[in-house]
Amino acid sequence: MTARTYLPLILSLSCAIGVSAQSEALNGPAPTQHNLMPVPLSARFDTGRLPVNKSFTVAVRGQVDPRLKAGIDRALRRIEGRTVLELARGLAGDGATATLVLESGGPGKAVPSVEEDESYSLEVSDRQAVLKAPTTVGVLRGLETLLQLLDSDREGYFVPAVQIQDRPRFPWRGLMIDVARHFQPMDVLKRNLDAMAAVKLNVLHWHLTEDQGFRIESKKFPRLHQLGSDGHFYTQEQAREIVTYARERGIRVVPEFDLPGHATSWLVAHPELGSAPGPYTIERKSGIFEPALDPTREEVYKFLDTFFGEMAVLFPDTYLHIGGDENEGKQWDRNPKIQAFMKTKGIKDNHALQTYFNKRLLQILKKHGKTMMGWDEIFQPDLPQEVVIHSWRGPGALAEAAKKGYKGVLSAGYYIDLIFPTSQHYVVDPIPTDSTLTEAEAAHVLGGEATMWSEWVSPDTIDSRIWPRTAAIAERLWSPRTVTDLDDMYRRLAVTSVRLEEVGLTHEKNQAMLLRRLAQGRDIGPLQTLVSVVEPVKEYRRNQQRPQTMLSPLTGLIDATRPDSDAARRFAATVDGLLSDAPLFEAHSQQVRNTLTQWRNAGPELEAMIDRSPALHEARPLAKDLNELGTTGLEALSYISRGVTPAPEWRTARLAALDQAAKPKGALEFPVIPSVRQLVIAASELHQLKQMTPAQWKTQVKNLAAPPKRTGN
Amino acid sequence: MTARTYLPLILSLSCAIGVSAQSEALNGPAPTQHNLMPVPLSARFDTGRLPVNKSFTVAVRGQVDPRLKAGIDRALRRIEGRTVLELARGLAGDGATATLVLESGGPGKAVPSVEEDESYSLEVSDRQAVLKAPTTVGVLRGLETLLQLLDSDREGYFVPAVQIQDRPRFPWRGLMIDVARHFQPMDVLKRNLDAMAAVKLNVLHWHLTEDQGFRIESKKFPRLHQLGSDGHFYTQEQAREIVTYARERGIRVVPEFDLPGHATSWLVAHPELGSAPGPYTIERKSGIFEPALDPTREEVYKFLDTFFGEMAVLFPDTYLHIGGDENEGKQWDRNPKIQAFMKTKGIKDNHALQTYFNKRLLQILKKHGKTMMGWDEIFQPDLPQEVVIHSWRGPGALAEAAKKGYKGVLSAGYYIDLIFPTSQHYVVDPIPTDSTLTEAEAAHVLGGEATMWSEWVSPDTIDSRIWPRTAAIAERLWSPRTVTDLDDMYRRLAVTSVRLEEVGLTHEKNQAMLLRRLAQGRDIGPLQTLVSVVEPVKEYRRNQQRPQTMLSPLTGLIDATRPDSDAARRFAATVDGLLSDAPLFEAHSQQVRNTLTQWRNAGPELEAMIDRSPALHEARPLAKDLNELGTTGLEALSYISRGVTPAPEWRTARLAALDQAAKPKGALEFPVIPSVRQLVIAASELHQLKQMTPAQWKTQVKNLAAPPKRTGN
Repeated sequence: MTARTYLPLILSLSCAIGVSAQSEALNGPAPTQHNLMPVPLSARFDTGRLPVNKSFTVAVRGQVDPRLKAGIDRALRRIEGRTVLELARGLAGDGATATLVLESGGPGKAVPSVEEDESYSLEVSDRQAVLKAPTTVGVLRGLETLLQLLDSDREGYFVPAVQIQDRPRFPWRGLMIDVARHFQPMDVLKRNLDAMAAVKLNVLHWHLTEDQGFRIESKKFPRLHQLGSDGHFYTQEQAREIVTYARERGIRVVPEFDLPGHATSWLVAHPELGSAPGPYTIERKSGIFEPALDPTREEVYKFLDTFFGEMAVLFPDTYLHIGGDENEGKQWDRNPKIQAFMKTKGIKDNHALQTYFNKRLLQILKKHGKTMMGWDEIFQPDLPQEVVIHSWRGPGALAEAAKKGYKGVLSAGYYIDLIFPTSQHYVVDPIPTDSTLTEAEAAHVLGGEATMWSEWVSPDTIDSRIWPRTAAIAERLWSPRTVTDLDDMYRRLAVTSVRLEEVGLTHEKNQAMLLRRLAQGRDIGPLQTLVSVVEPVKEYRRNQQRPQTMLSPLTGLIDATRPDSDAARRFAATVDGLLSDAPLFEAHSQQVRNTLTQWRNAGPELEAMIDRSPALHEARPLAKDLNELGTTGLEALSYISRGVTPAPEWRTARLAALDQAAKPKGALEFPVIPSVRQLVIAASELHQLKQMTPAQWKTQVKNLAAPPKRTGN
Repeated sequence: MTARTYLPLILSLSCAIGVSAQSEALNGPAPTQHNLMPVPLSARFDTGRLPVNKSFTVAVRGQVDPRLKAGIDRALRRIEGRTVLELARGLAGDGATATLVLESGGPGKAVPSVEEDESYSLEVSDRQAVLKAPTTVGVLRGLETLLQLLDSDREGYFVPAVQIQDRPRFPWRGLMIDVARHFQPMDVLKRNLDAMAAVKLNVLHWHLTEDQGFRIESKKFPRLHQLGSDGHFYTQEQAREIVTYARERGIRVVPEFDLPGHATSWLVAHPELGSAPGPYTIERKSGIFEPALDPTREEVYKFLDTFFGEMAVLFPDTYLHIGGDENEGKQWDRNPKIQAFMKTKGIKDNHALQTYFNKRLLQILKKHGKTMMGWDEIFQPDLPQEVVIHSWRGPGALAEAAKKGYKGVLSAGYYIDLIFPTSQHYVVDPIPTDSTLTEAEAAHVLGGEATMWSEWVSPDTIDSRIWPRTAAIAERLWSPRTVTDLDDMYRRLAVTSVRLEEVGLTHEKNQAMLLRRLAQGRDIGPLQTLVSVVEPVKEYRRNQQRPQTMLSPLTGLIDATRPDSDAARRFAATVDGLLSDAPLFEAHSQQVRNTLTQWRNAGPELEAMIDRSPALHEARPLAKDLNELGTTGLEALSYISRGVTPAPEWRTARLAALDQAAKPKGALEFPVIPSVRQLVIAASELHQLKQMTPAQWKTQVKNLAAPPKRTGN
């Protein structure tokens, strides 16, 4: 076998062809691309292949702990599901002849820890795969890599020969799921835990309490879940089930109880803890609300001591998240007793009062054996250094904390609820290249977490907001910082997305279901065309443009759409290909024409459907826009193909129309508009092709096509 | 408002236009079609409509029991999901102004019973809907009718004005789910219970034990579920959860413990109960197996007494199913002690021995307050009359039992695991029109059950085998016997199928998921074309042609296909339309051409995909056939369009090729072949059009196109 090595640095800076240029030897057809996500620390591909057929067997050298056994079983079932081969059950006795040999140094920690060793090595030759790790958690990570390596061609299924050495860059790689704004049933959590394991995430941050809901059973204070949840809460048995399910997959569970703000649902049951007399009702809107615990009353701390004593046992992880965000203290300002307390104690402002609260809480958590964690706001001058800062403000804030000796986790840039494209999350690094942190300081940056705030997701749609984008964030947190090639990321992400369906995720399949419901039995083809080229508006604009409450149905057109339109990205690439082929304009022209024709035709078909489905009325202006985008694009393409520059009036009128189409409707917008603008500008600038090189011309077209001003992020 | 009445008799014998011909008055545009399934006993549509908008409210006159409250809540959530309107929570205080007024005569029986009154009346005017029923179960049935009536147009959502009087024809309308061959998780059962309620089924027959698995926790004999289930069983808490979930929806739960045969999994744990010494292992194959309990030993009855004592409490329904099918008694024949026992007791054969066993079992069940039920085989001369016969043999067997005073339930004809088209199940009547039963005898026929035997279904595919076909069986069991129009049934079934997705069924959405896995990231378009026109082979041929075990992955092409191809039925209709348009042959010709072209083109595209996906290798001959069906059809269409009769050799060659294509491959077959045969024959018989009328000619074409011989059912 001839071997080629590539380092992640090379992989990240070069496309597959670049990789081969760097390789040691090129005399064998070793693979030039792989579908691994996250990319491992190092991978050295060889020319051989290990066949995967029905005689595939697994042996374990040394000890087999129950977690390892269950992990092997899950991996085998997934290989079976993909290959439609029935594989032998149970472990092979003979390590020498088994297809896959596993070696775990030990079962790993009883309670998964941020200090867990997750490293592994995987060596695949044409006769055996050997996976070794210091702990079972490392073996589980390596099994996921093996599943990602599984490939096929006319000869059958196989794993390419490879030598992988792998370990994570950051020890804390999380997904926060807010189950408070919209409750998420057990199966949503379980399938997301499986998906997390598939991309080597290791922390489920479980956001359990909010103004809009209290989602965990308390046996000490049962009114909390009884009155604060509309009946939608996890029993303690279910919480234990999730903790066990997560541990089986090498995932920690960090619960969050957001305090002293974001606490309306606590006060529904226990108004006596509040800073205003109440009564309180469960909040149904999204936003920042006033209710906050009263930090000046000893009864509050007595209550929290009992409550956290109960929760500390239920959630065995060392860390416990106390939220601490977005408390503006308006109730405090208006409460004379609180004001008097502050004066007496010399507490100068609400920040200081919250720090006072946090320090009291810290003592309680320490008593119950927990390390406290909270959002950025808790980082105040007087905060004890053992508290972990969870940053929604950015790597800068995190670095500032790290310099002062605080450990931190980054979520700024990983807010997946804001509907940004994957690429935008992917470039965010917890320790950016321009970081001035020393190595010791950098070690305080534990990692990051994608945050799935749940104001606008139901159990039917949440997967489509988390996946596949979170796989790219998982890569950022696991792989070397040098892995940054966007095209290659998107290529691998597409493969990863389909494979994530194996664990039951609904991010792909629920779209058509939602569209069928909206179409009420009609052919959903034209609707699929529309939703493929629109995206929900970004940041917090959805609720500004299309207000709803926590009780509103999430079954509208916007709920069937997805962030980061694949179709828009593909269209941009074909338009780019067409313009790069100036002055011939042959490359991709048929593809561009087909797409534009589909848009133009879908418009009128949609109109007929909208007439019958009032729930689709908000799509009417979008159908008109889609038709117009198609028509405009086809006109431009016609000029370009004929080499005829249109009259200046055409350009003015078309660009004005595109500006109208660019305004969101029903909180949806067309990410394809910049590409259509390029076509319009290209047609209008055809005459310039005589004055400049094709490359210069294309640059000028792209510059002119850039929208006049960008709104928002 | 002007009113029109139609009785189900009329609806069933006439299409919508026929209905209007029978109507009392025709001066208003009252609806001529509805989407109700099952069709109610009587429905009188008027011209008005009740708008459904965001001010929709519900009031209850009289008592509100918890089951009613929960049922209202579920209905409101489904209206919200479909309309994307946020409706008011809670009940309106004022019955006079509420949109919907409910009146329940009482909460219904604590344990749902076969004697439950499920009748209701629903009156919808343009200002209010009033739903009345003697019990809450009737209200729940009526709420499903209301949801099915919900319609929309450009003006918005509405319920048409109507007066409905409704009650079921049979009191026992069931779905049997075999959770033993393939275990089905809780969420599969729950979503199927919701779907059952949506089409007014009222019995979940829970087939809990089999050779291949023992699926219920026994605290008395824990080895049963511990050793007999591979860890896949329901805890008693989960069983109670299902019973409660079903009761909430007015559904009874009848558990089945199959004895004395089909008992391998019992004997894995307790070989001492068996008729041969053992040891036993869980059966992995499908078929009929020898292991049977030893009916001659007193310890067996002591064991069963304890076991059924435990189960009788867990499952509160009056009825308990003891299976009793397919015990061939081979172990009994070989056991000298059993033979000696039979001689001593004067038991003449194995049937008599099983009756002896059944009579002992009957005493045990009676002691625990249960009515015994079993499959056809238990109906032996000496069987006490209180036992209920569950017939898989047919209405004849059922009638025979009824005449002898036995109550019975029909499943023959409702075996949905056999992949027959809906129409074939739909025409099966528990009391056929030619029945000679007296009214009193007919009352012994309690109803029927669709049976979902689970040899070849996984949690991912089971919904697609149950739905939508079971909705038509539900109609057979609820609606008047005169409701038999197949075209109208299929029209309503298509609407019902999409609406069933609202309760979480995966029968539609999992197909694309399975295809994406098989295509490994490639465009699934051509695969969708293929699976839309193939069906799994019928009856028990799947395993003969494509053997698997209970441990095999059910993720192959066959698992992604569905019974009763819509596309085949549509194609048959367009070909029929084309032939009916002789000698012009213009009607539908473009549609027929488009479909055939799609088939022809999909073939080569599939080949490329198959090359990359070994799991699709079995599709290679199907891809070739599909291409050939398209090509042959297009050739025939070309002759037909040009009015040119082809040479006789062409006909011979094409028919021979179609006979080859008609042979199943990968246990899949093309239900579209008869239509393509018609095109070939039509082309060949074009010259006959001069000799006969177009109608005569079409009849001759259809006769000649009928395949030479039919295999199987």
